[in-house]
Amino acid sequence: MRVLVVHGPNLNLLGTREPEVYGTTTLAEIDQMLAELGNELGASVETFQSNHEGAIIDRIQRKDFDALLINPAAYTHTSVAIADAISAVGIPAVEVHLSNVFAREPFRHRSFIAPIAKGSICGFGKESYALGLRALLAK
Amino acid sequence: MRVLVVHGPNLNLLGTREPEVYGTTTLAEIDQMLAELGNELGASVETFQSNHEGAIIDRIQRKDFDALLINPAAYTHTSVAIADAISAVGIPAVEVHLSNVFAREPFRHRSFIAPIAKGSICGFGKESYALGLRALLAK
Amino acid sequence: MRVLVVHGPNLNLLGTREPEVYGTTTLAEIDQMLAELGNELGASVETFQSNHEGAIIDRIQRKDFDALLINPAAYTHTSVAIADAISAVGIPAVEVHLSNVFAREPFRHRSFIAPIAKGSICGFGKESYALGLRALLAK
Amino acid sequence: MRVLVVHGPNLNLLGTREPEVYGTTTLAEIDQMLAELGNELGASVETFQSNHEGAIIDRIQRKDFDALLINPAAYTHTSVAIADAISAVGIPAVEVHLSNVFAREPFRHRSFIAPIAKGSICGFGKESYALGLRALLAK
Amino acid sequence: MRVLVVHGPNLNLLGTREPEVYGTTTLAEIDQMLAELGNELGASVETFQSNHEGAIIDRIQRKDFDALLINPAAYTHTSVAIADAISAVGIPAVEVHLSNVFAREPFRHRSFIAPIAKGSICGFGKESYALGLRALLAK
Amino acid sequence: MRVLVVHGPNLNLLGTREPEVYGTTTLAEIDQMLAELGNELGASVETFQSNHEGAIIDRIQRKDFDALLINPAAYTHTSVAIADAISAVGIPAVEVHLSNVFAREPFRHRSFIAPIAKGSICGFGKESYALGLRALLAK
Amino acid sequence: MRVLVVHGPNLNLLGTREPEVYGTTTLAEIDQMLAELGNELGASVETFQSNHEGAIIDRIQRKDFDALLINPAAYTHTSVAIADAISAVGIPAVEVHLSNVFAREPFRHRSFIAPIAKGSICGFGKESYALGLRALLAK
Amino acid sequence: MRVLVVHGPNLNLLGTREPEVYGTTTLAEIDQMLAELGNELGASVETFQSNHEGAIIDRIQRKDFDALLINPAAYTHTSVAIADAISAVGIPAVEVHLSNVFAREPFRHRSFIAPIAKGSICGFGKESYALGLRALLAK
Amino acid sequence: MRVLVVHGPNLNLLGTREPEVYGTTTLAEIDQMLAELGNELGASVETFQSNHEGAIIDRIQRKDFDALLINPAAYTHTSVAIADAISAVGIPAVEVHLSNVFAREPFRHRSFIAPIAKGSICGFGKESYALGLRALLAK
Amino acid sequence: MRVLVVHGPNLNLLGTREPEVYGTTTLAEIDQMLAELGNELGASVETFQSNHEGAIIDRIQRKDFDALLINPAAYTHTSVAIADAISAVGIPAVEVHLSNVFAREPFRHRSFIAPIAKGSICGFGKESYALGLRALLAK
Amino acid sequence: MRVLVVHGPNLNLLGTREPEVYGTTTLAEIDQMLAELGNELGASVETFQSNHEGAIIDRIQRKDFDALLINPAAYTHTSVAIADAISAVGIPAVEVHLSNVFAREPFRHRSFIAPIAKGSICGFGKESYALGLRALLAK
Amino acid sequence: MRVLVVHGPNLNLLGTREPEVYGTTTLAEIDQMLAELGNELGASVETFQSNHEGAIIDRIQRKDFDALLINPAAYTHTSVAIADAISAVGIPAVEVHLSNVFAREPFRHRSFIAPIAKGSICGFGKESYALGLRALLAK
Repeated sequence: MRVLVVHGPNLNLLGTREPEVYGTTTLAEIDQMLAELGNELGASVETFQSNHEGAIIDRIQRKDFDALLINPAAYTHTSVAIADAISAVGIPAVEVHLSNVFAREPFRHRSFIAPIAKGSICGFGKESYALGLRALLAK
Repeated sequence: MRVLVVHGPNLNLLGTREPEVYGTTTLAEIDQMLAELGNELGASVETFQSNHEGAIIDRIQRKDFDALLINPAAYTHTSVAIADAISAVGIPAVEVHLSNVFAREPFRHRSFIAPIAKGSICGFGKESYALGLRALLAK
Repeated sequence: MRVLVVHGPNLNLLGTREPEVYGTTTLAEIDQMLAELGNELGASVETFQSNHEGAIIDRIQRKDFDALLINPAAYTHTSVAIADAISAVGIPAVEVHLSNVFAREPFRHRSFIAPIAKGSICGFGKESYALGLRALLAK
Repeated sequence: MRVLVVHGPNLNLLGTREPEVYGTTTLAEIDQMLAELGNELGASVETFQSNHEGAIIDRIQRKDFDALLINPAAYTHTSVAIADAISAVGIPAVEVHLSNVFAREPFRHRSFIAPIAKGSICGFGKESYALGLRALLAK
Repeated sequence: MRVLVVHGPNLNLLGTREPEVYGTTTLAEIDQMLAELGNELGASVETFQSNHEGAIIDRIQRKDFDALLINPAAYTHTSVAIADAISAVGIPAVEVHLSNVFAREPFRHRSFIAPIAKGSICGFGKESYALGLRALLAK
Repeated sequence: MRVLVVHGPNLNLLGTREPEVYGTTTLAEIDQMLAELGNELGASVETFQSNHEGAIIDRIQRKDFDALLINPAAYTHTSVAIADAISAVGIPAVEVHLSNVFAREPFRHRSFIAPIAKGSICGFGKESYALGLRALLAK
Repeated sequence: MRVLVVHGPNLNLLGTREPEVYGTTTLAEIDQMLAELGNELGASVETFQSNHEGAIIDRIQRKDFDALLINPAAYTHTSVAIADAISAVGIPAVEVHLSNVFAREPFRHRSFIAPIAKGSICGFGKESYALGLRALLAK
Repeated sequence: MRVLVVHGPNLNLLGTREPEVYGTTTLAEIDQMLAELGNELGASVETFQSNHEGAIIDRIQRKDFDALLINPAAYTHTSVAIADAISAVGIPAVEVHLSNVFAREPFRHRSFIAPIAKGSICGFGKESYALGLRALLAK
Repeated sequence: MRVLVVHGPNLNLLGTREPEVYGTTTLAEIDQMLAELGNELGASVETFQSNHEGAIIDRIQRKDFDALLINPAAYTHTSVAIADAISAVGIPAVEVHLSNVFAREPFRHRSFIAPIAKGSICGFGKESYALGLRALLAK
Repeated sequence: MRVLVVHGPNLNLLGTREPEVYGTTTLAEIDQMLAELGNELGASVETFQSNHEGAIIDRIQRKDFDALLINPAAYTHTSVAIADAISAVGIPAVEVHLSNVFAREPFRHRSFIAPIAKGSICGFGKESYALGLRALLAK
Repeated sequence: MRVLVVHGPNLNLLGTREPEVYGTTTLAEIDQMLAELGNELGASVETFQSNHEGAIIDRIQRKDFDALLINPAAYTHTSVAIADAISAVGIPAVEVHLSNVFAREPFRHRSFIAPIAKGSICGFGKESYALGLRALLAK
Repeated sequence: MRVLVVHGPNLNLLGTREPEVYGTTTLAEIDQMLAELGNELGASVETFQSNHEGAIIDRIQRKDFDALLINPAAYTHTSVAIADAISAVGIPAVEVHLSNVFAREPFRHRSFIAPIAKGSICGFGKESYALGLRALLAK
């Protein structure tokens, strides 16, 4: 079982970016946690971060994975193209968010990804990723 | 660590109700799963189901628990009163849904609970509950 | 053929409540009329009134009937939970209203029940119920 | 008691038109049913079908009837002029629909006729007409 | 100077139709008044009434007039086609209404004709027509 | 018969202000025209212009007139207070506009004055005033 | 003069619930204050609190009072049924709120109760109740 | 304790203006009532009425008072400037209305003053002012 | 292969009507072009123009053709009935427009025909028709 | 080069009014700064403040200046009349705001002035004025 | 005549991606078809596909072509920047879509490209491209 | 003091792109002007242009500057990701636009950048940049 983890724009800054919203954990720590949890659950985990909508689409299109864990970050709310890419490859996907998007600005309440994902998880900080990985690998 | 699990209206019919939307698992099976997972994670789990908005509020107000796992079902979209009850008791809550509400009717996209919950999880069937329990008990 | 007739909130006041809107017929008279018409059409009719959304759901969930005639009254416009209960039991339902809801306040134009009912009837006073019963029992 | 039955646009195709939505009954069969039911209830029934909004208005304006049973079909949602004609002649009218308009496209949820009709009935196939005739002739 | 006066749907009922809204003057009296006023102001006046949107368009397209006085009645709010016909013939037009449309239902506040007319007059009963004729013939 | 003519904000600039929209006639010429037409129709005409919403209300409240002809200009779209003043004095009012407001920016399509006026006239330049005076003095 | 005071959902928690929004006064203290003020103003005051929409409707329907003072709390924004109950019993009602609902979330700006109440008072903490009682008892 | 009472536009006409909406009490009677009630409650009351938005702002800016009781009348719905003035002087304010604004036209449901006031009272005629004064002076 | 070409309202004026929007080609020239192109592509082409919504529906209902090329003109934006007629006959249809409707008034951006057509073409003048015919006859 | 600087309502309170939003600089200091900067840039600067919409219009209409620097404050969002005055005099205008209006309440995001101004500047405190003056005087 | 064909995001997956929506034709086959049709019509055709909004803009900016055929895919609905690029280079463009976007999700009904294109074509599968090329090369 | 100037999509075409909207100045000239002005004001200025949303984010994330001057061009209206990047780096930013966006299409009135910028400037052509630089470097 190969899991691709996609981190969207600005997530590379994690730990330094607005810690009162996003916490102090770094992206490397999240990737490390996911690798370990994947190991424990019998899956290999590869991670990919980009600030480029197109690069995220290119990566997803490679289809060298069996399940997708994606935190689309700001592209959640504006990218039909990433949603179309996920639909196009036909691989199960789970959407995760660090913060509780429903407690933030109204434009963050709409997700183009959610309707085409298997499910969504938000609000638990780095734990959102861990839960998302479990969701992908469940049963 | 005492966790209260609240199941909203019509969830008592689970397993018989529209299985193409909600699956064939019964509520008893979910409660059993949560009890076992709680046990494993060091928490006691009590469950409560009601079709009455007021009864759900009454139950939450008893405050005899340390964390709340709630699937508000239809009340997600119409109950300010349950959201106010959760805010009022000041106990951390996680919102879960069996189905992917964002892939359903537009009126199911709005949640009064989500903005005041710690986080939300939807779309993973009974696994949504398991993930929600983990989220509550994380760290 | 067992028909359950559900009367929503405030319908117990019928005959005394705003007669210029709802007429002077009492609920007992309507129930009597339905019993007789049911008898004539070969169906037993049981009636149930409650001001409690949850009690209406509980009653519907008992599934001890073959067809549902429901005047959801105010819950028409606010209850996703009753609509979900009707969908959940999978028994054919007809929605009736005494008054012409489309000639009243805009918030009364929206029904959560209508889309999941077999059909809707409004505006004919107690005759709405008689027509609804005929609709349910029509071959 | 003379009842005019008006069938709006495309209803002449009934039985051939999208049977999965509108059923296989033909308009002639409906007219026959209404004539018989009218006979039984002591009313004469005349029927009129047109695809022309203006022709429907012309027909209504003749005022050679005591009650109007109208299925405005597509003009339900777009014709202020037919609604005005019904108001202008001041004859009681009942609106009927074969299908459950509230379970279809959002633009079919709005009716210009409903607010000025005595009442509305939808979703029961040809039975909608029979119920509408009963509603018009009730007491 | 030839003026065409177009009366939209249901205006043929004037004097009998809802006199509390539209007054007791008949269309013939209005036509007579316009003929006399036209005579006084040096213009010939021809009048045309139809309940058919298409017939109104056909009439306008004949272009055998120098100015158009139109009370589009219900088609005011729904007919892009009549507005397009007026634009297409390129003859100055004035829109009139007997009643004050802005004091009525919200759907009567929108006019497809107003933006392409020279101007609009509403609320003065039959005097609206007289004023409209003066407006067309002014200097 | 005493008619008060109220000119709203910026109308004192008429003739110099955006002549492509408002024409080259000055306000003095309009006042002169109205005085003469009033004379002809047997009414005295007093005119009042102000850029101050409050001053217009003060003037209307003096109630030393029998009919009100008002071009509220920009206050058409923003002043509930002037509309309330007109309702409060209970004197018939006619709203006029030089330009066709419906062919301009959307915010100019809404009038707080129109619903409480007897009627409205727009689009005929200074002729709008003359027609408005005739409307006030008709019959 | 018998006054019924109805406290809506979660108000039983008053004094403990989010004191920064609702203050530290308990419901018992408010009831005590109202009893005393009622005594002073010559009225008997009975109080009722419930988290159940249906129970509030049941209580109102008993009609054993001459005036209603109601803080509908969360049901303000979602309950057509309580508003209908108040209309149905035809007893004068005053709506009160502890907090200034207009300074809170947009969904709290809409009240189904306000249009059918005699008047509304919000923002003065427990004083809102005292003022509401005075309003009910004012000559 | 000095209380400034501000009466907005058209309130000087009170008693003569639309008595079916606003009652027959005059503004002088209200001012008299407030003076007496103020006296009773240990406060001096000064009243100010203007039809000018700017004059109301000027008056508020003088800051020669300790509390503000304001019936902004029509400016309730259109004046950001008065709301900003109240915020700017930083003196507690209470908003009152004679009529129940929520039972009137939709544009009267929005208040720019309410969110920045301490609280709002509407629907009790002159009693609204008395209650508002009590609210301001309540401990 | 028989193709019916339907031209909606005002298209008979083509070449004279607002040439800056619609060009100088006449409808006869378009019909001639389509006949020739149909000939070249092995299809017979019959054309029909009407300003009457009902007449267009009547024509479509005759079903004496295998494919429909329709420029609904103004009825694009207002006619549910024509859309229903096309659905009812179940014959493939292509929607064409001379002008680029998306570069015009907002009300021209909505088409009732587009969702039930095979596809849509706009903006290419008479070439839109030629392309539409090719689209219908492709493969 | 004569520049008129117009300060809208409540700006006379600057320095005392909500310093956390508007800073501690007084209006006199801003006027002094503008006079000096105007001097440096070869322009005379006259300043005008009023809380009266009408007074601001009167001042603008005097046309004794070559360029307009305006901070319309609250009138930004509600005054069509000031915008019309600026259009009417046909003198270039620049709109400035002390605070970042886009980071405040939604009703502050709309400006009637912006579309008819040369340009807009907001968010820089008193520096907004200095930048606005430079913008006006830039070649 | 040089034609640039731009294929937007995910179109490289054509033939494999959701064949029930987009068909089984590959992008290479479409490019081959366009090359041949271009050849036949006397034009050279170059094709370009990218999942990167910026790369599409860069390519369009090269201006080494005389006409643009673009299927913006998901960027249709979200990219102001591509629309601006097309406007900026001032080269005629035709927008094409494989599927009938108007029969899909509402967010696919809006196009930023359509208003600035010469025209649009949708719904004909690969034939949409062929028709688009003909439209660009017509006359 | 190091200032980064970011030019969004299509700004590289400046001077050639739609000069009636954007003027004839080239981007090189603007950069030259900013370098000189920066020099004069004691700041070093580096400029960056890209048509790629992701590249702009990458550049901003380098954080090798003390202040950001950004003309987001088309991304103003669609990029949550660039706004998030600016928030994430926590460096003061000023948004500038060459044209007056409020006088253009409605979709250009919304900015995702404005609420998180220090301030915004639009409408002054290249002078907008100069003013923006001054704003950044002010005191």
